[in-house]
Amino acid sequence: MKYGVVAFPSKKLQDLANGYRKRYDPHYALITPHMTIKGVFDADDKEIEQVAKAIQEVASKHKPFELNVSKVSTFAPITNTIFFKVTVNDDILALHKDLNEDFFGDQPEYSFVPHITIAQKLTSGEHDDIIGQLKMVGADHTEMIDRIHLLYQLEDGSWTVYETFRLDGVN
Amino acid sequence: MKYGVVAFPSKKLQDLANGYRKRYDPHYALITPHMTIKGVFDADDKEIEQVAKAIQEVASKHKPFELNVSKVSTFAPITNTIFFKVTVNDDILALHKDLNEDFFGDQPEYSFVPHITIAQKLTSGEHDDIIGQLKMVGADHTEMIDRIHLLYQLEDGSWTVYETFRLDGVN
Repeated sequence: MKYGVVAFPSKKLQDLANGYRKRYDPHYALITPHMTIKGVFDADDKEIEQVAKAIQEVASKHKPFELNVSKVSTFAPITNTIFFKVTVNDDILALHKDLNEDFFGDQPEYSFVPHITIAQKLTSGEHDDIIGQLKMVGADHTEMIDRIHLLYQLEDGSWTVYETFRLDGVN
Repeated sequence: MKYGVVAFPSKKLQDLANGYRKRYDPHYALITPHMTIKGVFDADDKEIEQVAKAIQEVASKHKPFELNVSKVSTFAPITNTIFFKVTVNDDILALHKDLNEDFFGDQPEYSFVPHITIAQKLTSGEHDDIIGQLKMVGADHTEMIDRIHLLYQLEDGSWTVYETFRLDGVN
């Protein structure tokens, strides 16, 4: 079964992202707006119990982190994915590191660019048509994230939450 | 903000339900297949923290429950909603009671019929066309549910998990 770890931002930021996703993201219906912290990995029913325990341990050692989005950016030309860029900070990096290095699942192939996707699978033409305007509108929002979620994927591609973990460490 | 409490069944049962929901349930994209334990209620940001604590207390006192679906049933003629009927048992009833009687939110207006919706918002004609076949195919699945989820609703109608609570009581 396929799993992943994400943070869901507040309703306010999710509503904002969904305004774009509804039009520009074919994954709109598969999952609500999120920031991925650990990308897709495979685990069987036995393994995931151990993984969940390990995530619990990591979460208990991390404190809530600030999620600040201050601009719209794009992964083009690598992929035509447009996103709210999340400002990197030590808390986010440390949490990502603990869930990806020396942890269950493969090492990430790309460097970590924390983000909330608002458009993807666009043609280059579509991408180029809207990126200018989206960048101009931009984004400006700050909030605290105090929990992360372990999700699993159904056959139709949609994601269900398996478990929530509160970030209740002090460091 | 609107909240609700549900149990998500296993991937196997969700995949089965989604096979029908994809065709027959306009809420298909808003939430993955679930059994509602506490229907929609309103709470503000302050209140929900208290409610979450109260749900945590309830969950800690209840043990995992058996979820058995053995037939397809319908709420017609009240509503044209078709569902996997969940066999009532003492554990489910007790959990439902503790989250609805003398608990935050209004008392439920209808008696509790635990179920997993597979079709809704059908016209009477559509309903009558498919109910016979769905009943004949039926359902037959049993599993243990060891956690419940508190969800909130976004402006577009979709639901995000706020928190997971393990049923880790012994009674």
